[in-house]
Amino acid sequence: MTIDLDALYIDLHRHPELSFQETRTAGVITRELAALGLEYVEGLGKTGVATSIVGGGDGDGPVVWLRADMDGLPVPEQTGLPYASTARGTDPAGTDVPVMHACGHDMHVTALLGALERLVATKDEWSGTVVAVFQPAEEYGAGSQAMIADGVLDRFPKPDIVLGQHVTPLPAGVVGVRPGTQMAASDGLTVTLLGRGGHGSRPQATIDPVVMAAATVMRLQTVVSREVDPRDVAVVTVGSIHAGLKNNIIPAEAKLELSLRYPDDEARANVLAKVERIVRAEAAASGAEQEPVIVTDHSLPPTINDADATARVVAAFESAFGAGSVIDPGMFTGSEDVSWFARECGAPLVFWFWGGVDPAAFAAAQAAGTVEKDIPTNHSPFFAPLMHPTIERGVDNLVVAAREFLA
Amino acid sequence: MTIDLDALYIDLHRHPELSFQETRTAGVITRELAALGLEYVEGLGKTGVATSIVGGGDGDGPVVWLRADMDGLPVPEQTGLPYASTARGTDPAGTDVPVMHACGHDMHVTALLGALERLVATKDEWSGTVVAVFQPAEEYGAGSQAMIADGVLDRFPKPDIVLGQHVTPLPAGVVGVRPGTQMAASDGLTVTLLGRGGHGSRPQATIDPVVMAAATVMRLQTVVSREVDPRDVAVVTVGSIHAGLKNNIIPAEAKLELSLRYPDDEARANVLAKVERIVRAEAAASGAEQEPVIVTDHSLPPTINDADATARVVAAFESAFGAGSVIDPGMFTGSEDVSWFARECGAPLVFWFWGGVDPAAFAAAQAAGTVEKDIPTNHSPFFAPLMHPTIERGVDNLVVAAREFLA
Amino acid sequence: MTIDLDALYIDLHRHPELSFQETRTAGVITRELAALGLEYVEGLGKTGVATSIVGGGDGDGPVVWLRADMDGLPVPEQTGLPYASTARGTDPAGTDVPVMHACGHDMHVTALLGALERLVATKDEWSGTVVAVFQPAEEYGAGSQAMIADGVLDRFPKPDIVLGQHVTPLPAGVVGVRPGTQMAASDGLTVTLLGRGGHGSRPQATIDPVVMAAATVMRLQTVVSREVDPRDVAVVTVGSIHAGLKNNIIPAEAKLELSLRYPDDEARANVLAKVERIVRAEAAASGAEQEPVIVTDHSLPPTINDADATARVVAAFESAFGAGSVIDPGMFTGSEDVSWFARECGAPLVFWFWGGVDPAAFAAAQAAGTVEKDIPTNHSPFFAPLMHPTIERGVDNLVVAAREFLA
Amino acid sequence: MTIDLDALYIDLHRHPELSFQETRTAGVITRELAALGLEYVEGLGKTGVATSIVGGGDGDGPVVWLRADMDGLPVPEQTGLPYASTARGTDPAGTDVPVMHACGHDMHVTALLGALERLVATKDEWSGTVVAVFQPAEEYGAGSQAMIADGVLDRFPKPDIVLGQHVTPLPAGVVGVRPGTQMAASDGLTVTLLGRGGHGSRPQATIDPVVMAAATVMRLQTVVSREVDPRDVAVVTVGSIHAGLKNNIIPAEAKLELSLRYPDDEARANVLAKVERIVRAEAAASGAEQEPVIVTDHSLPPTINDADATARVVAAFESAFGAGSVIDPGMFTGSEDVSWFARECGAPLVFWFWGGVDPAAFAAAQAAGTVEKDIPTNHSPFFAPLMHPTIERGVDNLVVAAREFLA
Repeated sequence: MTIDLDALYIDLHRHPELSFQETRTAGVITRELAALGLEYVEGLGKTGVATSIVGGGDGDGPVVWLRADMDGLPVPEQTGLPYASTARGTDPAGTDVPVMHACGHDMHVTALLGALERLVATKDEWSGTVVAVFQPAEEYGAGSQAMIADGVLDRFPKPDIVLGQHVTPLPAGVVGVRPGTQMAASDGLTVTLLGRGGHGSRPQATIDPVVMAAATVMRLQTVVSREVDPRDVAVVTVGSIHAGLKNNIIPAEAKLELSLRYPDDEARANVLAKVERIVRAEAAASGAEQEPVIVTDHSLPPTINDADATARVVAAFESAFGAGSVIDPGMFTGSEDVSWFARECGAPLVFWFWGGVDPAAFAAAQAAGTVEKDIPTNHSPFFAPLMHPTIERGVDNLVVAAREFLA
Repeated sequence: MTIDLDALYIDLHRHPELSFQETRTAGVITRELAALGLEYVEGLGKTGVATSIVGGGDGDGPVVWLRADMDGLPVPEQTGLPYASTARGTDPAGTDVPVMHACGHDMHVTALLGALERLVATKDEWSGTVVAVFQPAEEYGAGSQAMIADGVLDRFPKPDIVLGQHVTPLPAGVVGVRPGTQMAASDGLTVTLLGRGGHGSRPQATIDPVVMAAATVMRLQTVVSREVDPRDVAVVTVGSIHAGLKNNIIPAEAKLELSLRYPDDEARANVLAKVERIVRAEAAASGAEQEPVIVTDHSLPPTINDADATARVVAAFESAFGAGSVIDPGMFTGSEDVSWFARECGAPLVFWFWGGVDPAAFAAAQAAGTVEKDIPTNHSPFFAPLMHPTIERGVDNLVVAAREFLA
Repeated sequence: MTIDLDALYIDLHRHPELSFQETRTAGVITRELAALGLEYVEGLGKTGVATSIVGGGDGDGPVVWLRADMDGLPVPEQTGLPYASTARGTDPAGTDVPVMHACGHDMHVTALLGALERLVATKDEWSGTVVAVFQPAEEYGAGSQAMIADGVLDRFPKPDIVLGQHVTPLPAGVVGVRPGTQMAASDGLTVTLLGRGGHGSRPQATIDPVVMAAATVMRLQTVVSREVDPRDVAVVTVGSIHAGLKNNIIPAEAKLELSLRYPDDEARANVLAKVERIVRAEAAASGAEQEPVIVTDHSLPPTINDADATARVVAAFESAFGAGSVIDPGMFTGSEDVSWFARECGAPLVFWFWGGVDPAAFAAAQAAGTVEKDIPTNHSPFFAPLMHPTIERGVDNLVVAAREFLA
Repeated sequence: MTIDLDALYIDLHRHPELSFQETRTAGVITRELAALGLEYVEGLGKTGVATSIVGGGDGDGPVVWLRADMDGLPVPEQTGLPYASTARGTDPAGTDVPVMHACGHDMHVTALLGALERLVATKDEWSGTVVAVFQPAEEYGAGSQAMIADGVLDRFPKPDIVLGQHVTPLPAGVVGVRPGTQMAASDGLTVTLLGRGGHGSRPQATIDPVVMAAATVMRLQTVVSREVDPRDVAVVTVGSIHAGLKNNIIPAEAKLELSLRYPDDEARANVLAKVERIVRAEAAASGAEQEPVIVTDHSLPPTINDADATARVVAAFESAFGAGSVIDPGMFTGSEDVSWFARECGAPLVFWFWGGVDPAAFAAAQAAGTVEKDIPTNHSPFFAPLMHPTIERGVDNLVVAAREFLA
C-alpha cells in the first residue's frame, strides 16, 4: 500500500478548514492512519488526532514526537492554481469568510502522513517510539494547549524530543534552522474602544470611535519606532480594525485586533505595557467615558531550539541532503505553539523550515532585490509552495530527523 | 372608522426595515389606505407607496404633496422601551445587522396616515388635491429619486407645494423651521484603500492598509479644522472603517465610508476635492501600488425652504398652536432627499422639524448644559420620541400646513 | 500746517517695531501731536500715547475715544514695495527676528493722526471731547490692559463711546461692520511638553518630545473637526512648534504656541477644556514622566459692537460715502483687545473694517474664486494695502464717525 | 614633565566648543604638544590638529594612527558637577545655544594627550610611527573629511592601522568592541516643508506647515514600524522641528532635522527612499504648492572593525587588563566619521568603547532593569563619566593598543 501524497495534498488544499473546525481534515487523517494499520486517538483539542508507532524490538528506546498542524486561514485564495480553494467558513464572530491553506499546513499534514508510512515500513530498522501529533488551531495559538488539556501527554509516551517543521518561502531543497530562539513569542489582543454613537452630521454629540481608533493605530507605531532598542526584534501589527455600519452613523465603538511579537518574556512585558498605556491614553484623549477593553486572545511562548539537538538535526540533514542544504535563517518573527508539547515535559525541541519555492525564481528575485515583493509568503493569498520536491522533502526531513534520535 | 395610531406606531417601531426593504411597512401602509377607501400605487422606487385625495368641488385647486419616509437603520436599539425593536436585517454587504427606527420614520408614517384620515374626513371643507408619498430609502439618500424614476411625478398631479416633516430632539410642542437652507447638502463616499496583505509578523513584506486607513482618517480631520472657513458649515465624518479578519494577517485593503456635509454646491466641490487629495496622498505616503477607489454612493442636495411658503406655514402654525410654538432652529447639518420631489418640478418646499422630547427633561438638560449628552438624538440607539403628544402633533402639523395651501 | 500723511505712513511702514517696543513709533506720534499743538501723555502701557481735544464751547458734550494700535509683527516682508521693511527686532525669547507692519497698524496710526489734525482744525464745529489713544502691543492682546493699568481711563475723561478701525483685505471704498459679535474671543496658550532627551540613535532611552508634539498637533485638529458644533465658529491653530537643536540629539522638551478662537465665553470654556484634555492625554500616551505645562499668554474677549451705536455709524457712513459703501462682513475670527477700553466703563463700542485692496483686483479674484489665495491678508508677508485711497478713507472714517457722536 | 590630566580634563569640560569652532580646545592641545616637544600642524579641517612621534631606531615600522575628536554639543549641562559647563555658542543658524561636552570628547582629547606623553617617554621601546589626530566636528560627521581635504593624509605618513575610542555608559573597567559593524551608518537630513502663511484665525487661507510637519513626523514612524524587517537595525529620529514665531501667525514653512541609522548601504538606500516618499506625499496631502526641500547635511559610513586587527586589540586588552575586561557590546546605532581616515587608504580600523560609569551604580541599575533610565547616556544633559579611572584607562587603552601594532 502507498499513500498517493499528491492527491492527498490537493484534496487537503481544496478543503481548508478554520481553526478548531478541522473535522474533514481529521477524517482524512484518520482514514490514512487506519489504512496504515495504526490506532489513533481523535477529538484531542476538539479536532486533533494522535497516533504512535513502536519500533523494532521491545519498544525500548527514545520517544520522538513529530507534529503537524492542520488549520487553514480566512484568506481568499488568489493563486490561480487548478486546485485553488473556493472554500468558505464561519469565523468565531459568525462571519462567513473565505478559507485557504495560506500557511501550508496542508503540506505539513501530507508530509507527516508520508513520513509515518515510511516509518511503519521500516520499523524493524529502528527502536523506540514515534508519536505523531496532528494539531488543530495553530493559527489561534491554541491547539497544542487544547490537545494537552485533553490529555495527549498522558495518553501517549512523553517525548524525549519534539520535532516539527514548517514550509516557507525559501528555495526548495534548503532547510533553515538555528539553535536558540527560532521564532518569536507572540500575543494576540482584541482592543475594544468605547465611544458614543450618533448621527454622522452631528459629531459634537458623539465620542467618535473611528477617530479614536485611527489615533490609536498611529500612536501604536511609536512602540516599535521609538520605544524598543533598534537592535531588538519587536512587531506591533494591527491586523484588523472594525467600526461602523454606515457612512452617516457614527458608531459607539471600534475593535482592533493586534498581533505582537518579541524574542522573550522581558520584551513581552515591556511591549504589552506600552501598548496598554497608549490605548488607554488615546481613549482619554478622545474624552472616552469608558475605559477601553483589552483582551488577550492568545499568548505564544518563543520557539527555542535546543542547541545540542539542533546540532544533531543539522548534521543529519547535511549528511542526507548535502553540505549547504541547511542555512541559519535567523530568528523568525512568526510564532508557533508547538513548543508547549516540549515545555510541558522539559523535553528539547527542534523546529525547522523547509523551502517550497522554485530555486530559479528565488534566485532571480534575490538578484533583483525583490524577494519580499515577488515571492509570496505565508498568509498571502498567493502563497503556493511547489508540490515537488516540497512534499518529498517534507517526508524526508521528518524521517531523517526522527531516525537521528531513534536508536 | 378610526386608525389606532398608537398601535400603528408601536407595530411599525417593532418592525423596522432597512432601506429599499420596507415591504412589511408598505403592507401596513396600503392596508390602512385601503381601509380609508383610498386607491394607491405601490412598488414605486421598489417599496414606495403613493396615494391622492381630491378635495370637495371639482378637484380644482392647488396640489399639495405630503411626504413621509419609511426606512429604519442598522442600529441596535437600546431604549429599553416595551416595544423596542429586536429586528435584524441584511445590509447591502450581506451582513446580518440589527435594525431600529432610530430616525423616527415610524413616527412620520404614523403621522401621515393620521393626517390622511383627517383630510379624507374633512374633504368637503377644502378643494385641490393632496398627494401623499410614502418614500423608501431616505437613509440611502436614494428613495425619492427612485420613486421619481418609477414615475411618481407622472402618475400623480405635479406639486404646487411639497411639505414634509421630521421628528427631532426638540421639546414636544415646538416646531423648528426656517426659510432658506434648512438642511445641508451631503455626499456619501466609499473609499477603498489598496495595500498588500501578508503575515502579521512580517510587515516589511506588506503595504499595511490599516495604517494607511488610520493616517487617512487623521488627515481627513484637517479638512474641517484647517481648510474650511471657520464660519462655514462643513462635516467630514468617517462613519465606518473595516479591514482585516484576524490579528496575525495584515489584510490587503481597507474600506472607509464617509459622510460629508456642506451648505451648497461650491462648498461641496471644495470639500470633495480636498478629501480626494488627502486620500490619494495618504495612499502615496504608504507606497501603495494601486490608487484608492473612491465611489460616491449618494449625493443629496441642500434642503432649501421657500421663503414665502415657509412664512405661510409659520403663520399657520402660530395661529393653530400659539405664539412661541415655532422657532428658527438654524441650519441642520443633517440631510434629506425630500427636495428632489420639489426640484424636479420647480415647486416650493417647506420641511420642518417637530419636537418629541419631554419638555421638562429638555429644560433640565438645557439648564445643566447637557442637551448634547442627555437628550438622545436621531440615529442614537437611545432615540425614543414620546408617543404623546408627538403623534397627535405630527398629524396636526400636516393637516394645518396642507390646509394653508389648499383652497 | 498739514501733516504729510504719505511720508508719515511710509516712514512708519519702514520702521515697524515689535509689541511693547514701539519707542520710535511713539516718538513719531508725539512729534506730530506736538506739531498739532496737543498735549499728550506718553509711556502709558510702556510705549502707548494718549491725547485729547476739547471741542468748541465749554467742553460739554460726549466723550468720544478714537483708538489706533501701533505694533508690527515678526514677519519677513516680501511685498517688494519700495518702502518695504528690512527691520529686525528681538522677540521675548531673545531671538532676532524680521519685523513688518503685516497687520496694517501703520495705517491705523496714520489715519488717526490725520483725523486728529482735521478735528483740531474743525473744533469750533463740534462740542464734546475727543480722546485719541495710540495703543501698543495689540498683537500680544496686552496693550489696552497695560494702558488701563497705567491709568489711561483716569487721566482722560471716560468714554461715552469707543471707536476703532482696522484696515483689511476688502475692496478700497468699502467698510465692513455689523452689530453684535464682530470679532472672536481668543486665547493664546504656550504648551511645554516634557519628555526625556538623549542620543538620536537611541530613542528607546528617551521620551521623544518631537513625536509627542506631532501627535498632539494631529489630535488637536479633532477639537474643531469632531467636538464643536459644525455651525459654530472655532479655531485651534498651532502657530509655532519648536523642539531640538540638532538632528542627532533627541531634545527633552517641545514647545507649542496655540491660538484659539470662539464667539463667546461658553465656547471658550468648552474648547479650552478639550485642548487641555488632549494635551495631557497625549503626554500620557508618550509615557511622559512630567505633566505638560500649559500657560495662558493672553486672553481676549469677543469684540461686540453696540447695536444702536453701530446703526448710527452705518447711517453716517452711508450718508457720507454713499449707499452700498457699508457691508456686513460677518463675524471675523480674528480678535482685538480694543474692547477693554469700553468694557471697563460699560461704554458702547463700534469697531469697523475698511478695505485697502484695489477693487478691480478684488473683483477679478472674486470672479476667479481665488480671493483667499490671491489677496494677501493681514499677517501675510505680502500684506500691502493701497496707500490711496486707504489713508484718506481711514481719516474720513474716524472723522465722520466721531462727528456722529460729538454734539 | 607630566601633564596634569585631571586639570586638563576639567578645563576642557568647562570650555566646550561647537563643531568647527574648537579654537580654544585646539589651543590647549597645541600648548600641551609643544610642552611634550612635539611639532604639529594646526588648522587642518579648520580647527583640527595633528602630530607624530617616530619611535626608536630609524623610524621604520608600522604607522599607527590614534584619533580623538574635540567638539561639544548644544546641550544645556545639568550634571550639577562642580566643573559643569556654563558655556554658550552660536550654532550654524546663528542661534545662541548652551554648549556641553555631552558626548565625552573632552575625555577623548585628555586620554590621547596622556597617551602621547607616555609614548614619547617610552619611544625607545618601540619602532614605527604614531600619528595623533585631534579631529574637529565629529558631531557634524564632517571633521574627518575636512581634515582629509586639508591634506592630513599627505602631510603625515599614511596609516597601517587606525585606532580610536569612545567613552560610553558601560561600567568603568570594561571595554566593548566587536569585529565587523561596530557602529551604524547614518545620514543627517534637513527637510523644509513649504506651506503658505497667514493669520492664525484664518487657517483656510493658508497651507499650514505645522500640521504638515506633525503629519510627516507621525508617518515617518511607520518606516521603522512597518517597512523595515523587524530583525534589522533602523532608526528614523526627528531630532528637531521648528516652525513659527507666534501663536497667531501661521508660518509659511517648517523645518525638520532627521537622523537616520542603518547597518549598511543597501538599508540606507531603502530607508532614504521611504523617507523621501513620505515627506513628499505628506506635503501633497496638505495641498502644498511647492515640493519640500530635502538636503543631506552629512552622510556617515558604517564603522566596521577589521576582524584580524580587532582580535589583536582584544587579546592585548585581555592580557593587559584581565580576562572579562572586554565584551562584545553588539552593534551600536550611533555613528562615527573616524572610518574615513582608514577608508581613504584601505587601512584597517579598530574603534572601541570604554566604560565611564561607577560599576556599583551600573550593577544596581541593571538589577533593577533601569539602565536605560538611570544611567545617563551620551548626548544627555546628565552625561558625566567618572574622572577616575576613566582618564587613566583611556590612556592605557591607547598605549596598549598602539604598542600591539608598533614593532
